[in-house]
Amino acid sequence: MKNRKYILKERPRGEVGLQHIEMIEEEVPDIRKGEVIIKTRYISVDPYMRNRMNDVKSYVPPYDLNGLLGGDATGEIVMSKCEEWKVGDLVCGSFGWQVYAKIKGKRLTRIDTSMGDESAWLGILGLTGLTAYFGLLQLGQPSAGETLVISGAAGAVGSIAGQIGKLYGCRVVGIAGSDKKVSYLKDALGFDEAINYKNYPSIRKPLKNLCPSGVDVYFDNVGGEISDGIMYLINDRARIVLCGQIAQYNEGRIPTGPRLNAQLLVHRGRMEGFIVYDFINQFDEARDALSNWYKERKIIAPESIAKSFEMIPHAFLGLFKGENQGKQLVSLI
Amino acid sequence: MKNRKYILKERPRGEVGLQHIEMIEEEVPDIRKGEVIIKTRYISVDPYMRNRMNDVKSYVPPYDLNGLLGGDATGEIVMSKCEEWKVGDLVCGSFGWQVYAKIKGKRLTRIDTSMGDESAWLGILGLTGLTAYFGLLQLGQPSAGETLVISGAAGAVGSIAGQIGKLYGCRVVGIAGSDKKVSYLKDALGFDEAINYKNYPSIRKPLKNLCPSGVDVYFDNVGGEISDGIMYLINDRARIVLCGQIAQYNEGRIPTGPRLNAQLLVHRGRMEGFIVYDFINQFDEARDALSNWYKERKIIAPESIAKSFEMIPHAFLGLFKGENQGKQLVSLI
Repeated sequence: MKNRKYILKERPRGEVGLQHIEMIEEEVPDIRKGEVIIKTRYISVDPYMRNRMNDVKSYVPPYDLNGLLGGDATGEIVMSKCEEWKVGDLVCGSFGWQVYAKIKGKRLTRIDTSMGDESAWLGILGLTGLTAYFGLLQLGQPSAGETLVISGAAGAVGSIAGQIGKLYGCRVVGIAGSDKKVSYLKDALGFDEAINYKNYPSIRKPLKNLCPSGVDVYFDNVGGEISDGIMYLINDRARIVLCGQIAQYNEGRIPTGPRLNAQLLVHRGRMEGFIVYDFINQFDEARDALSNWYKERKIIAPESIAKSFEMIPHAFLGLFKGENQGKQLVSLI
Repeated sequence: MKNRKYILKERPRGEVGLQHIEMIEEEVPDIRKGEVIIKTRYISVDPYMRNRMNDVKSYVPPYDLNGLLGGDATGEIVMSKCEEWKVGDLVCGSFGWQVYAKIKGKRLTRIDTSMGDESAWLGILGLTGLTAYFGLLQLGQPSAGETLVISGAAGAVGSIAGQIGKLYGCRVVGIAGSDKKVSYLKDALGFDEAINYKNYPSIRKPLKNLCPSGVDVYFDNVGGEISDGIMYLINDRARIVLCGQIAQYNEGRIPTGPRLNAQLLVHRGRMEGFIVYDFINQFDEARDALSNWYKERKIIAPESIAKSFEMIPHAFLGLFKGENQGKQLVSLI
């Protein structure tokens, strides 16, 4: 039985492109006791994967050169030497960009479709939703009546974080990269305001108009100049949640920008990074909350689904061009 | 009776100099019920006063143009229409750079010399010591065995913060601007290591050698390039305490530097600003702790004392040239 998988052919310096990714074929390996073979159904592509292409120590280890790319996916067990799993079971786990995955059974999570659709287990019920949940609630600590600004608001995490903010009574203002996304945030997801940063040389002034009471919580998915504009608007005791810095993932070297720590200082603000696994002991309760909101239609979990295995690199590269709205997945079914 | 005082003659754009400060004479005003006249004895000059010269909303209000300069001072009551105070009482409070101060009695603190010398009430027992105490312990949350790095380590706040860090079992590394200060930090104050940043184009490499286990807590008094070097060395869950940014107080516009929020993100670090008044309800217990350490000689509270009223502007300007070692005061006695 043949497997197909994507490997890291070359580490990108600067912008990642198709030349750094290679598809190879190989035999599906035999499995030993405790292992299963999964046939992949949905694959998640995420901005953080760009960082794993660098040979740099980070909170997730770098991909090996010529090693498998990717992260979370869903699939169906097609072979099992593990008591816990039988053929036909639907699972999710970190088994990457490949058609067939050999993995230890204990590293898988059972998909419970009564909690949400299979694809939702990569989105609102997966690391995406959990990241939005813990980042906003644990680090952002929003209170009713506060102003929450979200950059990358139409992305997978941002679109969920904003809706959670609404459930907590915040005034939610989203920043996105197209007029279409702005309409979507306001009309479909219930954001109070949204702004297309590409329409302005700097978002500082237009955003000030949308945040007449300043910014109490900033959920940052992008970094760079967009974040600069927001830092000028923070209120005393503002919380800045560092969730992503996509604006600089493709930079070959560290870019420069204004030194704005004095803003944090005079406003006694807090800026904090996190990784969702810090909260792994609370995943179940968070997933329950997210599932309830999702089933009650209090939170919409938008998805952009590309079709077929061949589309994986394109779907991934599209993240950096802002092509996705909500969670970007690739369907192999 | 004639008073002499320093006023803000002109708001500096960029570097502050003597031309922005003027001494004037005026009659000491009459007092009403509840007020006292103080004859000033010791005056505090502090870097934050440069910020108050700008017409910018901050956590302390800006000085008025042609208004009194300065902050905390000590003095002796020479006239009183306030039941609580009698002539001869020794007090401290925020009565600025002047020889005689009219002030409401309730805005004064009684100096208890059994807790520390009069001048210490502007240093280790004053806002300086309290800032070091709350900044390090509440925001920095140091644990025994962790590495604490302090910039501006030979300054008023830094020298106390470092010694508190030692009492909490940290490996303490100070950054200062002269070889003499470096010796002082290591030999007199008990810092484990110290480094003169002026001896290196960047402190990143030499500091790495002094912090073989990375940096867990960074107490930042300076900002700018020194802080950049430290951000590359932070450990997971590092705490960065934003206490001051003296490196840019004299900049006419916001300087640029490398965008290092990604360092915070991948290390799940926290950067936080504060103002000592956030902890005003805990001032008494903090002052007791600081007083005990001071009296037991567990903490040395270094002072640089300039003599005479005429030296106030020079002592203040010297802060930005790194001329002081420890707390800079001016004595009028």
